Amino acid sequence: MGRVRFHVAGESHSSGLMAVAYGLPAGIPIDRSEIARWMAARRSAAGRGVRQELEADHFEFLSGVRDNVTNGGPLAIFLPNKDRSGGSVTSNGKPVSLEFPRPGHADYSGSIKWGVTDATVVAEQASARITAAYVAMGAVFARFLRELGVDSFAHVSRLGPVRPRRRRWMGQPRMKQWRLLSEASRFASLRPADEEAMARAIGEAKEIGDTLGGEVEVVFSPVPVGLGSIQPMDERLDARFAGALMGIPGVRAVVLGDGLDGAFLPGSSFHDQFVGDGTSARRSNHAGGLEGGLTNGQPVVIRTVVKPIPTLGAPLSSQSLKDGRPGKAERVRADVTAVPALAWIVRSLAAWVMTDAIMQRYGGDRLEEIESRLR
Amino acid sequence: MGRVRFHVAGESHSSGLMAVAYGLPAGIPIDRSEIARWMAARRSAAGRGVRQELEADHFEFLSGVRDNVTNGGPLAIFLPNKDRSGGSVTSNGKPVSLEFPRPGHADYSGSIKWGVTDATVVAEQASARITAAYVAMGAVFARFLRELGVDSFAHVSRLGPVRPRRRRWMGQPRMKQWRLLSEASRFASLRPADEEAMARAIGEAKEIGDTLGGEVEVVFSPVPVGLGSIQPMDERLDARFAGALMGIPGVRAVVLGDGLDGAFLPGSSFHDQFVGDGTSARRSNHAGGLEGGLTNGQPVVIRTVVKPIPTLGAPLSSQSLKDGRPGKAERVRADVTAVPALAWIVRSLAAWVMTDAIMQRYGGDRLEEIESRLR
Amino acid sequence: MGRVRFHVAGESHSSGLMAVAYGLPAGIPIDRSEIARWMAARRSAAGRGVRQELEADHFEFLSGVRDNVTNGGPLAIFLPNKDRSGGSVTSNGKPVSLEFPRPGHADYSGSIKWGVTDATVVAEQASARITAAYVAMGAVFARFLRELGVDSFAHVSRLGPVRPRRRRWMGQPRMKQWRLLSEASRFASLRPADEEAMARAIGEAKEIGDTLGGEVEVVFSPVPVGLGSIQPMDERLDARFAGALMGIPGVRAVVLGDGLDGAFLPGSSFHDQFVGDGTSARRSNHAGGLEGGLTNGQPVVIRTVVKPIPTLGAPLSSQSLKDGRPGKAERVRADVTAVPALAWIVRSLAAWVMTDAIMQRYGGDRLEEIESRLR
Amino acid sequence: MGRVRFHVAGESHSSGLMAVAYGLPAGIPIDRSEIARWMAARRSAAGRGVRQELEADHFEFLSGVRDNVTNGGPLAIFLPNKDRSGGSVTSNGKPVSLEFPRPGHADYSGSIKWGVTDATVVAEQASARITAAYVAMGAVFARFLRELGVDSFAHVSRLGPVRPRRRRWMGQPRMKQWRLLSEASRFASLRPADEEAMARAIGEAKEIGDTLGGEVEVVFSPVPVGLGSIQPMDERLDARFAGALMGIPGVRAVVLGDGLDGAFLPGSSFHDQFVGDGTSARRSNHAGGLEGGLTNGQPVVIRTVVKPIPTLGAPLSSQSLKDGRPGKAERVRADVTAVPALAWIVRSLAAWVMTDAIMQRYGGDRLEEIESRLR
Repeated sequence: MGRVRFHVAGESHSSGLMAVAYGLPAGIPIDRSEIARWMAARRSAAGRGVRQELEADHFEFLSGVRDNVTNGGPLAIFLPNKDRSGGSVTSNGKPVSLEFPRPGHADYSGSIKWGVTDATVVAEQASARITAAYVAMGAVFARFLRELGVDSFAHVSRLGPVRPRRRRWMGQPRMKQWRLLSEASRFASLRPADEEAMARAIGEAKEIGDTLGGEVEVVFSPVPVGLGSIQPMDERLDARFAGALMGIPGVRAVVLGDGLDGAFLPGSSFHDQFVGDGTSARRSNHAGGLEGGLTNGQPVVIRTVVKPIPTLGAPLSSQSLKDGRPGKAERVRADVTAVPALAWIVRSLAAWVMTDAIMQRYGGDRLEEIESRLR
Repeated sequence: MGRVRFHVAGESHSSGLMAVAYGLPAGIPIDRSEIARWMAARRSAAGRGVRQELEADHFEFLSGVRDNVTNGGPLAIFLPNKDRSGGSVTSNGKPVSLEFPRPGHADYSGSIKWGVTDATVVAEQASARITAAYVAMGAVFARFLRELGVDSFAHVSRLGPVRPRRRRWMGQPRMKQWRLLSEASRFASLRPADEEAMARAIGEAKEIGDTLGGEVEVVFSPVPVGLGSIQPMDERLDARFAGALMGIPGVRAVVLGDGLDGAFLPGSSFHDQFVGDGTSARRSNHAGGLEGGLTNGQPVVIRTVVKPIPTLGAPLSSQSLKDGRPGKAERVRADVTAVPALAWIVRSLAAWVMTDAIMQRYGGDRLEEIESRLR
Repeated sequence: MGRVRFHVAGESHSSGLMAVAYGLPAGIPIDRSEIARWMAARRSAAGRGVRQELEADHFEFLSGVRDNVTNGGPLAIFLPNKDRSGGSVTSNGKPVSLEFPRPGHADYSGSIKWGVTDATVVAEQASARITAAYVAMGAVFARFLRELGVDSFAHVSRLGPVRPRRRRWMGQPRMKQWRLLSEASRFASLRPADEEAMARAIGEAKEIGDTLGGEVEVVFSPVPVGLGSIQPMDERLDARFAGALMGIPGVRAVVLGDGLDGAFLPGSSFHDQFVGDGTSARRSNHAGGLEGGLTNGQPVVIRTVVKPIPTLGAPLSSQSLKDGRPGKAERVRADVTAVPALAWIVRSLAAWVMTDAIMQRYGGDRLEEIESRLR
Repeated sequence: MGRVRFHVAGESHSSGLMAVAYGLPAGIPIDRSEIARWMAARRSAAGRGVRQELEADHFEFLSGVRDNVTNGGPLAIFLPNKDRSGGSVTSNGKPVSLEFPRPGHADYSGSIKWGVTDATVVAEQASARITAAYVAMGAVFARFLRELGVDSFAHVSRLGPVRPRRRRWMGQPRMKQWRLLSEASRFASLRPADEEAMARAIGEAKEIGDTLGGEVEVVFSPVPVGLGSIQPMDERLDARFAGALMGIPGVRAVVLGDGLDGAFLPGSSFHDQFVGDGTSARRSNHAGGLEGGLTNGQPVVIRTVVKPIPTLGAPLSSQSLKDGRPGKAERVRADVTAVPALAWIVRSLAAWVMTDAIMQRYGGDRLEEIESRLR
């Protein structure tokens, strides 16, 4: 089918969310428990507060599935909300209003844009709840890839002050091991010692009403050589990843592999020299598997830097949307960090881009066709 | 007209390049000398070698211009090449061949993709020459924005070991001053002392046959509040910038404002608190003017990290595309760094995204209509 | 916001359908009873059989509405299905199977494409039920246009053997009158005498187990001059209308105004000469208000020719998807004609294209902004 | 590569035109004489006047070709204009002005849109000259398809009063024969007797300063079953054809197969019953090979109705763009009909859509890959 398109919509206090993917082949296994597991993992990831309790994990397919495999039509998922109050009342029954926009949030810009003096309507749109729809579909994309032999995982590679040891993903990482480790951790962490440090950092931040940012690293391997395009610019795989991942709320930077080091290191140290054995093997993977807009056969490694949550227990300086008078920003939610949850979201969106790249290159209406073309 | 689309094509040794923009309004001044100046600046930016001599600055409009203003139709530019050899011979007449792909370049992946054992054809496609077409149109986008009061500049904020002092772009920077400074410098530098350090770094790298990466920072100001979109994800302005800038050859990371710091700083230090005077003024601009996918009225600040050029004077380890035997990568070009040239390219693409955002929000078939809507 | 995107998904026997529109401004009145009226009109249009009973009219907004106006975010509608059997059983409990594809339907091609020998899964995808989602959103698009002064209606301009007198839509048709007439008729007819003839034709076809095609004409007026684009080809308004309307299941031809006559008439008779009073007035409207990809100020008039329903009471010759042996096609549904229902669907899609054209030209985040720009 | 995108730009009196196609595989033969033959056929098609003399047939590839095959990069063609006057003077040296817009042309709407009182600038944009770029690329698309075994031709199926006998394209038409016949005729006619009648009709129209419309029919065969999509609506193959063909200047209706008959015939007569031999064979091909948005294995047959040229020798009533006073429209060109030339243009655009459908379904970076997947 070529191109795979992916759309979501919904608000956090409406009757639900929806996600739809156009262009998936027939025959992808739809494992409801796997999807539920992804959704639960996002929902109960470390750093999130009481809010998670309000979310349901229920979902239904509106189209695209028959006998537990995709049928080739649009794959549409509906995720009913538990709280359908319309966001108009708080949990204790008071009418919600957001007169004082939260710095770091869309509150202010959205209110000016749509001409409102209560940012609630903006907050509904910008709610992190929408990312549940990303993850529900992300589980399907990741499964599609795994059926084709392309495994993936995402982990928290930094959380506020905690910096796990940097690992090098090159050659043939034991993907299954890392996938299981990262998926089993509420911190999306690869190492118990890091988990402890992260738990401490979250506890400390929570105590002072503060929030934490961090970094998520997503890895795909093995990856066929030559996915993507050199030109046109908007079909380069690096551009596609950057566009998709920067579109996730809270993401402030997208880095390919060790891309930041490229600013410092001379070319002789940065570029990944060939082992010279006639395969795609390299001596390093600073490029994160992407050169010239194309995959080069090394693991695809992408880092996304995530900002701290803008809603603080100890609120920041703001001003009224009504009359401009100074005041403290609203305090809506008690999460300390979204970073562990973002591991699931980043992986979902990255899996979409990879799915699209494979479908663009291999076409095919049925999974088995694509498998045979990939071989 | 809404959406502004932008396409380029061409190779470095064909009869020329083309660039076309669909959706620009009528009435934008087309100042040929301004466009020529942008093209010359890119071509003769510091760090580039003899190659620049081979490029011409000539260009012609195929459509879209009448009496030195745009006419509302597709704006198409043709840039004839000086060297039209087809890339099949070197400057001294030898037939070019690229049997040993350059690490960091599309050579290897492209050769596998298209089934060739001589990467010349890949190199033609991936040539930096194409960026001349970006810059020719970029001058028009930047001019369009300036006509609407939105000024811009780009500068080299890092070059290998040289780290110019970080500046804070907030409030109302004196844009014209910074624009003139950056445009006047072959290093796209804002400070003579930095230029000297950069020149030294380039000289040292050249001596040992090495190359340098760095970072380009682009700034727009003043910017209306509310450009972009919270949803859908692919119309968020942050996602649009990331997609466009990561699509530039050599770019490895895109960072919004001080986005990298967000991974370390707690929310209380990272988010840009309101001054509280009823305007969009903030006490800091870590967000780089972008919150929730929308502009927030602060200067838009985006950094792109650029890798060192993959073609080294002292070539890297590679292997034959024909038989896989180890060998040294080809040595095609003598540039030390593309970073100063990239300042122009990054600004061009960023100006395109900003132009599109303004046209999406304000519509209009004539510049004067848009001006009146912006006011 | 510029571009307005519109997507639907769902199947006829799943838990429901969804429709989402991205890019609508804030402030469009959302009148639930108006939307329900459109949906009911489509559902109970003349020519449809028992099936209509199985459809529900219920719908919920998943996002985009606050206090009965759009809020500027994605407008998402969820339409639960009444029959959620998954299509796996017939109304009398027998398992459904479609071994013998219906000529005229996607059954055969879809089964080959997705490698199935039971076309049920294809039929679910290609079900006319999906058009309920078009109409739910179509009511919103039409309302948006009417708020801006652009009225619309659609009527059945032919139904099998019945050919209502051709009317000329030019100058300033009394749109409200025609709108109310067409909306009040189960045949989407403008004249009681035609309704009677249509009812007779439907009755006769039903008796012999046959089906009927026809033609729907949609009209917009008044329309601003200059919507659309001459180039690029895919932004011409004529191309946009054709693409959108031909994408409706059952549509086999799209004709602008009296476009078919253009093949016969000499230019001197076909082209719409100016009255010459300095306004956009013409002496005829053969062009259907569209010249050179742009609106010309005359009513926009588009005709879509609709084929007879492929599921006949007296089934057609087919062959088994399993072993190729000849046999009669399946008989799934008892509708005689979809043409009156299509009046609502055609108007919905055409209203989307017109909405997009207006948003592309006028931009704007709030209805009131757009109103002031249109004036 | 998936999706094939196609863009053109240029004006009739600038330095030239450009066409670019993104997404074509490597390995398509580029036969310059074949492309030149298509361009010459369009230029010298019957019904066109002196104007054709002013057009050149020269073209150059800016990218995408190496050793006479495509290389997988963007395929960009530059077509220099012979007359580079900018359109500012007539052939006898007088300054051109278009104060009185031609009914049927974009003159009026474009002038209002861009706020000009001289429609010359609009006419440049809307010039038929741009279609030369369509045809240059069309030759490549058609060649790509033929390499995969999908042959095509287009012929004039009506020219003003002349109605060639309707042929039925079903089963396995002898495509090569019809292709050679249609290509050899300046009238794109399949029968010498029709040619004579067409020549007479053109002569008569020319004498009285009038113009003629008509109809072009394009045929593809053999075509694989299942190209296209049922949903989403904008990826249905019927919608793609309609959008592309209606975007050609002068086209007023797009009809799939015998789609117009569908309005009259009952379903029992219209739908194409299976022969019942286990193949895709049908007893008729009213559907034109397209059912439910998908190809069904029968020849794809599409008709486009073309209006008479709006520039008449005996001009129509118009009014001044400056002061609204009545007057006769400008007389710019002496062509009688564009229909025979449109056979080439329609075939070019239809071949693009078919190319895209094949690339979406089969993917592939090299022609040989796609060939092996199609087999």
